[in-house]
Amino acid sequence: MAVTVVGSVAFDALETPFGHRDRIMGGAATHFSIAASFFTDVSVVGVVGEDFGDAELDVFRSRGINIDDLEQVEGERSFFWKGRYEGDMNVAHTLDTQLNVFADFDPTLSPAARSASILFLANIQPDLQRRVRAQCTQAHLVGLDSMNYWIDSARDSLIQTMREVDVVVFNDIEVRMLTGEPNIALAAKQIRALGPQLLVVKEGPYGACMFSDDGFFSVPGYPLERVVDPTGAGDSFAGGFFGYLDSLGTSSWSESDLRCAAVCASTVASFCVEDFGSDRLQRLTHEEIAQRFEEFRSITVFEAPIFARGT
Amino acid sequence: MAVTVVGSVAFDALETPFGHRDRIMGGAATHFSIAASFFTDVSVVGVVGEDFGDAELDVFRSRGINIDDLEQVEGERSFFWKGRYEGDMNVAHTLDTQLNVFADFDPTLSPAARSASILFLANIQPDLQRRVRAQCTQAHLVGLDSMNYWIDSARDSLIQTMREVDVVVFNDIEVRMLTGEPNIALAAKQIRALGPQLLVVKEGPYGACMFSDDGFFSVPGYPLERVVDPTGAGDSFAGGFFGYLDSLGTSSWSESDLRCAAVCASTVASFCVEDFGSDRLQRLTHEEIAQRFEEFRSITVFEAPIFARGT
Repeated sequence: MAVTVVGSVAFDALETPFGHRDRIMGGAATHFSIAASFFTDVSVVGVVGEDFGDAELDVFRSRGINIDDLEQVEGERSFFWKGRYEGDMNVAHTLDTQLNVFADFDPTLSPAARSASILFLANIQPDLQRRVRAQCTQAHLVGLDSMNYWIDSARDSLIQTMREVDVVVFNDIEVRMLTGEPNIALAAKQIRALGPQLLVVKEGPYGACMFSDDGFFSVPGYPLERVVDPTGAGDSFAGGFFGYLDSLGTSSWSESDLRCAAVCASTVASFCVEDFGSDRLQRLTHEEIAQRFEEFRSITVFEAPIFARGT
Repeated sequence: MAVTVVGSVAFDALETPFGHRDRIMGGAATHFSIAASFFTDVSVVGVVGEDFGDAELDVFRSRGINIDDLEQVEGERSFFWKGRYEGDMNVAHTLDTQLNVFADFDPTLSPAARSASILFLANIQPDLQRRVRAQCTQAHLVGLDSMNYWIDSARDSLIQTMREVDVVVFNDIEVRMLTGEPNIALAAKQIRALGPQLLVVKEGPYGACMFSDDGFFSVPGYPLERVVDPTGAGDSFAGGFFGYLDSLGTSSWSESDLRCAAVCASTVASFCVEDFGSDRLQRLTHEEIAQRFEEFRSITVFEAPIFARGT
């Protein structure tokens, strides 16, 4: 079993209340693949410029991530994003975006990348998402992310892509924006009516929730006192989610499997934001994941009530 | 054991996407006391005008709520609030506030109301909250709510009141506003450092969380597809919380007790918003409470993960 992710591999410049980084490895596929690598084999489909050197490639290699489908274009520069987070850390203010190599990205996947059991279409142009999706004919499960920019500018194409996937992983703002429905339970019905059996809603510091055939599940945000950099939280969440599902070696997941995946997702994402970029995930251990997973249990369990009246 | 609540008893005019009501019973003490009455005995300390008739008083009587401390002032009108909720239902837009009888409210509590085991200071002027608090010398537990208006206009007095209570029940916007700290875990530390052992944070549709000596607990919002009127959600939450704690007949509550109380609170609040004002709570049954309490368990439980790697 293996997961293939297609998406940005980039350099980020970041400003947060905890400091700044002028040039740090970023991109959705980077965060996703590092997170998923704690659970299963991962192939990254992406493109970088010649500014992407061995130091960056070694981050993937050290986690055993397959980068055969990470194209490197001579004489060009990698995708670059510059953003700032202010006090509440929940809104990324984009200061600069340079597509660079990403402008003409239209990959032909290797046989290994095509044969993935799970495919994740990270946030890229939705036509491109469908072209990659069409190449992965053996995937048991296809997941999708997007962003406000595509909801605004490529809405019809995005909806077509949604019809061709099994799992949509959006944040709650995107869910409301796409559907025009402020009630998240009703919005989930609309999205699932398009085709995806599962909607996973990322809610930032509030956690995440999930709408499936078997109902509703909610996992809280981990109560971190120090959120250094939220960049990559959503992508590492998705990486933990699909990485865990893939590790189970099945093509048919129970509600219980999906719930464990959502808690793994929240666990990895909660570590991601503890440091800049992927720095925290690069030094994360399996023991820390297992321990925090159980902390998620301890912060959500409650016993049977004792009702003195009416029962 | 019994709970005393002091706060507004009022008429509300409401506009929501589901309709409008020109004159419906409202006020924090109304919602709190009806919610708490499902669990324990309640006394309401408040004031109404002569426009408050038997129909309104019967709502309290039918729930067995003690209204001996609900003063009625001849020739004056009850507190009146007019508000509108728009699409997202999370923000109340105040259209009109008429203090009326509430302007000169400064109650002397009856012996019965003073002898409560639990006192809840609903959202009123913080000096007044302290004067009521001083009268309830036998209370094992004192809870406090407030609002943005008092945080802005009577901050020092509110902080003094916070020093004299055990439990603060604020929404997350109020927590951030009072402390100036966007990180809710750090803000909770600041608030608990003032004196209250327990901070319960209401997070609207996201649910609620709780910071205690024993750590952190989170309960999600119930995934309602139809939120008719959010008015009173926070007050009925508090009523469920303190009502349940009082029903246990103790003066020393375990973390497990507090967690069950938070789920009872979320349960009652989730019913409250299903109809205008207190209409839904007026026809609520103990069986429905017990059933939805268990639904909160079913939407939050997850099993042990199977980690293929690293363990």
